[in-house]
Amino acid sequence: MVESRVILALDLTGEDEIMSMARDLGKDLFAIKVSWAQTMIHGAGIIRRLSEHSKVICDFKLADIPKTNAQIAGIAAEHGAWGIITQAFAGTDSVKAVVEASDKLKVFAVVSMTHGGSSQYIDGHIEDMVRDSLSAGVYGFVAPGNKPETLARIRSISGPKKIISPGIGAQGGDPLTALRNGADYVIVGRAIYQSHDPLSVLKRMNRTVHDAQME
Amino acid sequence: MVESRVILALDLTGEDEIMSMARDLGKDLFAIKVSWAQTMIHGAGIIRRLSEHSKVICDFKLADIPKTNAQIAGIAAEHGAWGIITQAFAGTDSVKAVVEASDKLKVFAVVSMTHGGSSQYIDGHIEDMVRDSLSAGVYGFVAPGNKPETLARIRSISGPKKIISPGIGAQGGDPLTALRNGADYVIVGRAIYQSHDPLSVLKRMNRTVHDAQME
Repeated sequence: MVESRVILALDLTGEDEIMSMARDLGKDLFAIKVSWAQTMIHGAGIIRRLSEHSKVICDFKLADIPKTNAQIAGIAAEHGAWGIITQAFAGTDSVKAVVEASDKLKVFAVVSMTHGGSSQYIDGHIEDMVRDSLSAGVYGFVAPGNKPETLARIRSISGPKKIISPGIGAQGGDPLTALRNGADYVIVGRAIYQSHDPLSVLKRMNRTVHDAQME
Repeated sequence: MVESRVILALDLTGEDEIMSMARDLGKDLFAIKVSWAQTMIHGAGIIRRLSEHSKVICDFKLADIPKTNAQIAGIAAEHGAWGIITQAFAGTDSVKAVVEASDKLKVFAVVSMTHGGSSQYIDGHIEDMVRDSLSAGVYGFVAPGNKPETLARIRSISGPKKIISPGIGAQGGDPLTALRNGADYVIVGRAIYQSHDPLSVLKRMNRTVHDAQME
């Protein structure tokens, strides 16, 4: 089986729905992404339970001082997280604290976002944030799948690091465009979990991506 | 009794210690501030339990897209939070989503931070972030208590909005300097909860602040 390039943004809130989605789709996904909502409602134990079905990326958009960022990352790692998302904007010391919190955790730094507000402050610093995050030792980057030019620019300066891209589906991006512009993995939510047959949609997406790479 | 100007950063992790500190100090505090660590370990129910003893400010440093920021703020409000902290740098739409998530929640926007990394990206945008956060309808700001000049600058442009200031004690700031430079409330953690007699330390701090305001 070819490794999937799809990360499921599991933005549901009920534990039964969350866990049944993870059980049904886990082996056909690259990873599952959870946000704070799932962790608030169910506690960090949800990370461990999901990790039985898939790698889990904690999309926590950490933006705190180094000590607090490290504490949160450490708790995520203890609960079995595979990856964690941190905001480069908070500063290199804050990113570095996440990288150093656990050698088990893959750290992805956000260097641009999918919404309009990203252009106000964040996007003016993309080059510097990529360079500083590389020096902090991140595993990869989060770059917007619905902004192909920004994504391609980030790809061109981030060397061999992995790029994961949200903004696919409801926010306007499509998987193939994102992958062609430099994403290694696409983050898809509602287009999969709200569909009538999530597993078929996911398998079709995996196949489409695979075929496109063979072209 | 004079209203306290002290917010306790309750960065402990064991539920017994957290709750006994809240019970003992609650009525002599302005509010208790919790971070993600407490919420991850104990679930969002900890907010409700703490709110029986004091107003609770969720220091979540929200830095996500509007939809996700709003979802997190909504869950915090449902669990009895009085206030929430959000990152202005994520963009005005993201801040506005927090403000609109619940009319029960006081929203404080971070416009500068206490650590070194704040100077890399965030601090270059202070004026714009204050202006944009005001237009988004925030209740107040978070400004560094250990950087009196930055704090005073933020005070001078934020009108009558409330300013809460971390960085007191372990991070170098002192309460009176912060209050004199524009903070309305100071956020103190270890200097209180790690002391031999937290209630006495807090009461002394309340008295010192009160006396200084009478001068």
